[in-house]
Amino acid sequence: MNAAAVLTVRPLTREAFSPFGTVIEPDPSTMRLINGGNTERYHALAEAEAAGDDARVIVNIFRGSPRAFPYTVTMMERHPFGSQSFSPIDDRPWLVVVAEDEGGRPGVPWVFLASGRQGVNYRRNVWHHPLMTVGETSDFLVVDRSGEGNNLEEFFYDQPFIIEKLETSA
Amino acid sequence: MNAAAVLTVRPLTREAFSPFGTVIEPDPSTMRLINGGNTERYHALAEAEAAGDDARVIVNIFRGSPRAFPYTVTMMERHPFGSQSFSPIDDRPWLVVVAEDEGGRPGVPWVFLASGRQGVNYRRNVWHHPLMTVGETSDFLVVDRSGEGNNLEEFFYDQPFIIEKLETSA
Repeated sequence: MNAAAVLTVRPLTREAFSPFGTVIEPDPSTMRLINGGNTERYHALAEAEAAGDDARVIVNIFRGSPRAFPYTVTMMERHPFGSQSFSPIDDRPWLVVVAEDEGGRPGVPWVFLASGRQGVNYRRNVWHHPLMTVGETSDFLVVDRSGEGNNLEEFFYDQPFIIEKLETSA
Repeated sequence: MNAAAVLTVRPLTREAFSPFGTVIEPDPSTMRLINGGNTERYHALAEAEAAGDDARVIVNIFRGSPRAFPYTVTMMERHPFGSQSFSPIDDRPWLVVVAEDEGGRPGVPWVFLASGRQGVNYRRNVWHHPLMTVGETSDFLVVDRSGEGNNLEEFFYDQPFIIEKLETSA
């Protein structure tokens, strides 16, 4: 086996993340004033997908333990029947790791550094790494699908990838 | 018109809120370990309702300006086609104001003081006051319905209700 490839960490932007889903942040282009002007509604930043006759969209909280860096990415997962969104509620930077599909398996991972005010929605069937929290245990609001059928597919890489030590401003 | 009635502010608990919907907080009874033990999943704290063939469940951010107290409650609203959840992401206490339906109009409001770590999901057709933020402008993650049809019903009380000055620990 060759040495593990080191992955580049990029800032999370709507444009860069668009092949995988949407970024959940107060995008000014989506803003509508509601409640008699009291409230700014940043509208439809993500749309939940839930396939299957009995499928439901549910709201959960995920409490993720921090990952140790350098971190070795050995696997990815995806959800064939639904989207999954993650929004931080502790205002700490975190990592979003996704991959394009290459004939039924994930390609080389893309690593995005999200701020503590940026969430993401993985579209249905988008390969992603399980929650990657940095520094401290952190909570996320998660919107995903509940229903029948096996909604989890995992893939283990032949060759791992490395995310080196992170420099965050948190 | 009589003098406005003063409303009692109660702590938000799952039990007290159960006629109106669910509280979105890390309820230990819902916890499952996932991601190889890295993550605690507090499962299905709320379920989105979205009626109509074309209806979708969307994720939004609401940025609410703080209300001034004493606050006069003059109206309530409800959404006949879908649920609506609010989860604070700024860790500031806020108020949840709901009412039981009495023959197509809201009864006397119930006022709950939620912590900055407590969200709620209003079930479809539950009367509630628009977002009531306390102290500072605050952001909330909101999960609700998008689709055809008029999903907003408003009711204006003949006699207003008062929420007096709040004492919060924030």
